Amino acid sequence: MTDPTASSSELSPTQRTRLRRYPERGRTERAVLYEILDAGLFCHLGVTEDAGPRVIPTLYGRIDDTLYIHGSPASTTLRAAQRELPVCITVTLVQGLVLARSVFHHSANFRCAMVFGRARVVTDPEERIAGLRACAEQLVPGRWGAARTPSREELARTAVIAVSLAEASVKVREGGPHDDDDDLKLDVWAGVLPLESRWGAPEPDPGLQPGTPVAAHIERLVGRDAFDRRDKRP
Amino acid sequence: MTDPTASSSELSPTQRTRLRRYPERGRTERAVLYEILDAGLFCHLGVTEDAGPRVIPTLYGRIDDTLYIHGSPASTTLRAAQRELPVCITVTLVQGLVLARSVFHHSANFRCAMVFGRARVVTDPEERIAGLRACAEQLVPGRWGAARTPSREELARTAVIAVSLAEASVKVREGGPHDDDDDLKLDVWAGVLPLESRWGAPEPDPGLQPGTPVAAHIERLVGRDAFDRRDKRP
Repeated sequence: MTDPTASSSELSPTQRTRLRRYPERGRTERAVLYEILDAGLFCHLGVTEDAGPRVIPTLYGRIDDTLYIHGSPASTTLRAAQRELPVCITVTLVQGLVLARSVFHHSANFRCAMVFGRARVVTDPEERIAGLRACAEQLVPGRWGAARTPSREELARTAVIAVSLAEASVKVREGGPHDDDDDLKLDVWAGVLPLESRWGAPEPDPGLQPGTPVAAHIERLVGRDAFDRRDKRP
Repeated sequence: MTDPTASSSELSPTQRTRLRRYPERGRTERAVLYEILDAGLFCHLGVTEDAGPRVIPTLYGRIDDTLYIHGSPASTTLRAAQRELPVCITVTLVQGLVLARSVFHHSANFRCAMVFGRARVVTDPEERIAGLRACAEQLVPGRWGAARTPSREELARTAVIAVSLAEASVKVREGGPHDDDDDLKLDVWAGVLPLESRWGAPEPDPGLQPGTPVAAHIERLVGRDAFDRRDKRP
């Protein structure tokens, strides 16, 4: 499952991954790519259809240098991906708004990973299970072992695609506003307004058996930063 | 700026906006499209380049039936958009994870708007200012009137593009898990784990004039749901 071309600790610059704008925001360490992908909960998958691009949010998981996405074989987007056409997978984590003294210098603090590749339809039964497991564990670590795993019929109704991390770019914007010198004297509040993403109190399904406790793998998330996944990989 | 084809209160189904999967999640009221677009903070913009699709996160604003996006004229993505090629703009708001008894029925509660169109380069000076104002107000209502507005030179360094809301689709998933009957007896916690997005305490720029108070238009956001923008439009 590991793509040999993706094994370097540095991201290789290609025509598509070179940053023309704000090159200082680019990061070339593969470890930062992994951090962003592991912290995210969902991605935006872009495919090209006859009429133009389509961008859909979807869940994903990572194993080494491969991203996995699953869905219905009937999904428009997965069908396009299954034709092994080029795709782009983007994961964006926004940490706050950067409020400058001038409108022009407003921005957002964010971490963004973009992966370019061709979707590969996963057919090997073991790799399909591993990919689905990675997607479940991406949401809530420990979930795969707690919930009922897919039956043969469910597997037959699930398409799994894989995209290599061989070609990827990473952008990170952090810190306060960068105002022009002439604007520093203005009487305008400037700084960062943090955007906090936290897990709330679990809402039990009304059909739960009486007395079913909230599982430990869920309980430990409550109140925590939803994009802080440092302990996600055991 | 209002596209006459986009004025109906219902979204028109087209080949691209018809939902093949989970049609029950589709919403056809234009008001729901507006709600999602107004609640969002950033979008994912998809364009098609020679090598395939590219999906980037970017800020946006809405006026009536037009979305505005701005950026550097040198940006790869804006350059592609400026060739009046088809684009897809997706805004996704995730409210929580749906944890079912079976892995197969795991999902997320979300609201998603997808807009399909061709980018129009905005050249009219008044519309350019209106579009930039919409983008600033989308982030923090009241910000345009508080910060220094763009100078002539800044405007010359800013590209503004517009995309009509004539062709759009909306998907909404809400509520608890839908497990198979046979799974209801399993001893697995099931329900929804809410994902809460809130504004944190403002972090002042170290270069602020001593005694500059946090502006009222920022202070009133603190602790609030970042995607609750019911009072955003005065």
